[in-house]
Amino acid sequence: MLNRVRSAVAHLVSSGGAPPPRPKSPDLPNAPSPQTVAPPEAPRSPPATAGSGSAAPAKTVEARASFSRPTFLQLSPGGLRRADDHAGRAVQSPPDTGRRLPWSTGYAEVINAGKSRHNEDQACCEVVYVEGRRSVSGAPREPSQGQGLCFYYWGLFDGHAGGGAAEMAARLLHRHIREQLKDLSCWSSQKEVSHESLVVGAIENAFQFMDEQMARERRGHQVEGGCCALVVVYLLGKVYVANAGDSRAIIVRNGEIIPMSREFTPETERQRLQLLGFLKPELLGGEFTHLEFPRRIQPKELGQRMLYRDQNMTGWAYKKIELEDLRFPLVCGEGKKARVMATIGVTRGLGDHNLKVCSSTLPIKPFLSCFPEVRVYDLTQYEHCPDDVLVLGTDGLWDVTSDCEVAATVDRVLSAYEPNDPSRYTALAQALVLGARGTSRDRGWRLPNNKLGSGDDISVFVIPLGGPGSYS
Amino acid sequence: MLNRVRSAVAHLVSSGGAPPPRPKSPDLPNAPSPQTVAPPEAPRSPPATAGSGSAAPAKTVEARASFSRPTFLQLSPGGLRRADDHAGRAVQSPPDTGRRLPWSTGYAEVINAGKSRHNEDQACCEVVYVEGRRSVSGAPREPSQGQGLCFYYWGLFDGHAGGGAAEMAARLLHRHIREQLKDLSCWSSQKEVSHESLVVGAIENAFQFMDEQMARERRGHQVEGGCCALVVVYLLGKVYVANAGDSRAIIVRNGEIIPMSREFTPETERQRLQLLGFLKPELLGGEFTHLEFPRRIQPKELGQRMLYRDQNMTGWAYKKIELEDLRFPLVCGEGKKARVMATIGVTRGLGDHNLKVCSSTLPIKPFLSCFPEVRVYDLTQYEHCPDDVLVLGTDGLWDVTSDCEVAATVDRVLSAYEPNDPSRYTALAQALVLGARGTSRDRGWRLPNNKLGSGDDISVFVIPLGGPGSYS
Repeated sequence: MLNRVRSAVAHLVSSGGAPPPRPKSPDLPNAPSPQTVAPPEAPRSPPATAGSGSAAPAKTVEARASFSRPTFLQLSPGGLRRADDHAGRAVQSPPDTGRRLPWSTGYAEVINAGKSRHNEDQACCEVVYVEGRRSVSGAPREPSQGQGLCFYYWGLFDGHAGGGAAEMAARLLHRHIREQLKDLSCWSSQKEVSHESLVVGAIENAFQFMDEQMARERRGHQVEGGCCALVVVYLLGKVYVANAGDSRAIIVRNGEIIPMSREFTPETERQRLQLLGFLKPELLGGEFTHLEFPRRIQPKELGQRMLYRDQNMTGWAYKKIELEDLRFPLVCGEGKKARVMATIGVTRGLGDHNLKVCSSTLPIKPFLSCFPEVRVYDLTQYEHCPDDVLVLGTDGLWDVTSDCEVAATVDRVLSAYEPNDPSRYTALAQALVLGARGTSRDRGWRLPNNKLGSGDDISVFVIPLGGPGSYS
Repeated sequence: MLNRVRSAVAHLVSSGGAPPPRPKSPDLPNAPSPQTVAPPEAPRSPPATAGSGSAAPAKTVEARASFSRPTFLQLSPGGLRRADDHAGRAVQSPPDTGRRLPWSTGYAEVINAGKSRHNEDQACCEVVYVEGRRSVSGAPREPSQGQGLCFYYWGLFDGHAGGGAAEMAARLLHRHIREQLKDLSCWSSQKEVSHESLVVGAIENAFQFMDEQMARERRGHQVEGGCCALVVVYLLGKVYVANAGDSRAIIVRNGEIIPMSREFTPETERQRLQLLGFLKPELLGGEFTHLEFPRRIQPKELGQRMLYRDQNMTGWAYKKIELEDLRFPLVCGEGKKARVMATIGVTRGLGDHNLKVCSSTLPIKPFLSCFPEVRVYDLTQYEHCPDDVLVLGTDGLWDVTSDCEVAATVDRVLSAYEPNDPSRYTALAQALVLGARGTSRDRGWRLPNNKLGSGDDISVFVIPLGGPGSYS
């Protein structure tokens, strides 16, 4: 998330570039906050096991405190160093050998061009087993999973102001979802509420509990910063895409693009933010105005007429400038430069409990929402072919790549592979990441059209929709 | 708006069924509230003049205080009596003779089946001339209109708890829009803001000023009740559709349906209402909870687990029932029975400043928004044929007629007339109203499929998109 948090940069500078120590693990959802900080755990072996957490390999205390990459990348210490190299920006994917990701999911990532010390994106891909609180009557179970229910899970977490929040979310959010889904056991007695809306509610609440856990544990473990979260849950024939932040998910199906998320930024959430500032003016601390103006107003313009927008308006109208209008606007800037309180460029996500306005004690968290928007896609309503995919990407991808360009790459790359070649989805993820990064030239990273490539961390999942049966 | 306001019914019963006296006219937008009530005006002659207000004919003081119908219907006293007859429910349209409505617009209406004493829908159709505050540089003018700007205007107003608010809005809202559009004169100096977003802002602010005027003048004139407002403005090649309430607008173009509005009800606005109740709990008066539950909770269920939704959720999750959860939910009921505070079934509109919760002094107005959602349709982007129309209807139409059924009626009726026959749009409006009303049988008004017809007031505009040039 390039240049998204001004105060984050200030923090990194003041702390010498080292992100805060990684929080203790494993934390169980809803567990009370530990009172003491445990000593670092012994190193764990890299290969992931389905159903386990996705904590990163940590060969030494120092390396562990520095950074980590998703477990499923199975990086050696040398590989970890290459993944952390801003000059080479080598694209990372799970190895061809060894266990594939569920559904033959493709994944690729690349570190940023130097905007932060480490790659602050994180990822998780798991099969999660849910043991019901009681038996789930009426809800069919995955045949191989015995008495419980299991769901497939993919998560992308784009950190800012440090990697702590993204790492914690990658390690724990699916466990919160698992906890919430245990409640589905009560479902059959509430006929007026659909099974689908219970899953949506479970995911929504899991995001909230994850955020609350970060708030509790930041004191003990210094979970600095925050992260966007884009999560996919597959359960009982339906794909749930939950997004809080500015990552994006699209389905490419028979060449057609189906948006599965929208971005939450100061521009798209202006009216929500302004309404909060209007109803709770104390949150503006006398420093900001909830009104938006096309440009900053000068004191000499007092009493003149100026265009404005408030929480109720999508258009612009005129008002006479008053003293309060000279305050800095709560929402200002356009596109990637849009900011809340001149500080943060994304309005939903996890963490950021310590985030303050620059040179101020005014907290920004009250304006941020940890709640995702959840969209549901019924996999059973359409017969999917091997070229139909769900693409998840952090903003590093989407800043320089349009939906149509992604769809074109899907077509180009997948048609070069046999339909039953499971490596084609990893090749596609790599092509998307490479296409957004570009190549290193005299004047930075450049795309073939000579425009600037993305200097941000870039992470991409490609999930084939051909069927859950492809899990090997 | 059938059964939409419980307290309204209570009011009608307690006042013997007579709606409050009609407010004084003509009120100029932004004019200070008059301190005294003027005596009733002398009767005015019915025929409308383009550019004038659309106040209803009022032959006697008594008739005027009772009810009025749109001026452009040119109703004689006998016609007015027939329009007010709940038993016959004769469909009313402008006469074939005389001046046509702008663009050969079709219009038809019918009174309700007895749910209120008079037809509480109102309508307005005008060509409005705007004299700029200064010259509008860069904005082309309608050639025939001299130095100013003119816009075409259509408004449907669905009143509840009396006809006063709908009548006042039909008479004055377009004047507020005219006042706001005078500000477009400053436009050329603000290049970063589009002309379109200035028109949208002007319409939004006009709704707000209209609502404020109702608040001011209710003391002098007893503007009881409120109204939904659905308004269309055509200006400089673009159609602006502004909706606050549960009326609906669709474009039928070459058989395709393009929605031009959405409905604002306790169901569609649940999260906005809950957020307000959460941030301003004093508005709930200790009587209501902002949480939603699938059913009313019994005191004996305290401590048990129950499904709920709050302002952040679209899905459902479980919580332990606490004492506060026993309060009545802010939003409850489904479909046409959904209510805010057990009272009103529509969440946006004008008026309702005196509306209170049944048997309580708790005001409901803070939860209602007077702001419309404005959608813009660029007439110049498509070559429209004479069969392409914009259909506006109050909920009396849409309660029993789907978008597809309206599109089918458009096709059926228009194909029975010559393309250049200007009476075809009135015939279409009449067919739509008749199709929603049905025919009177032993057991009420019935549709051909024997389902109940709409017992509500029904009003329909059919606006041909073939071109502004068709104004005769």
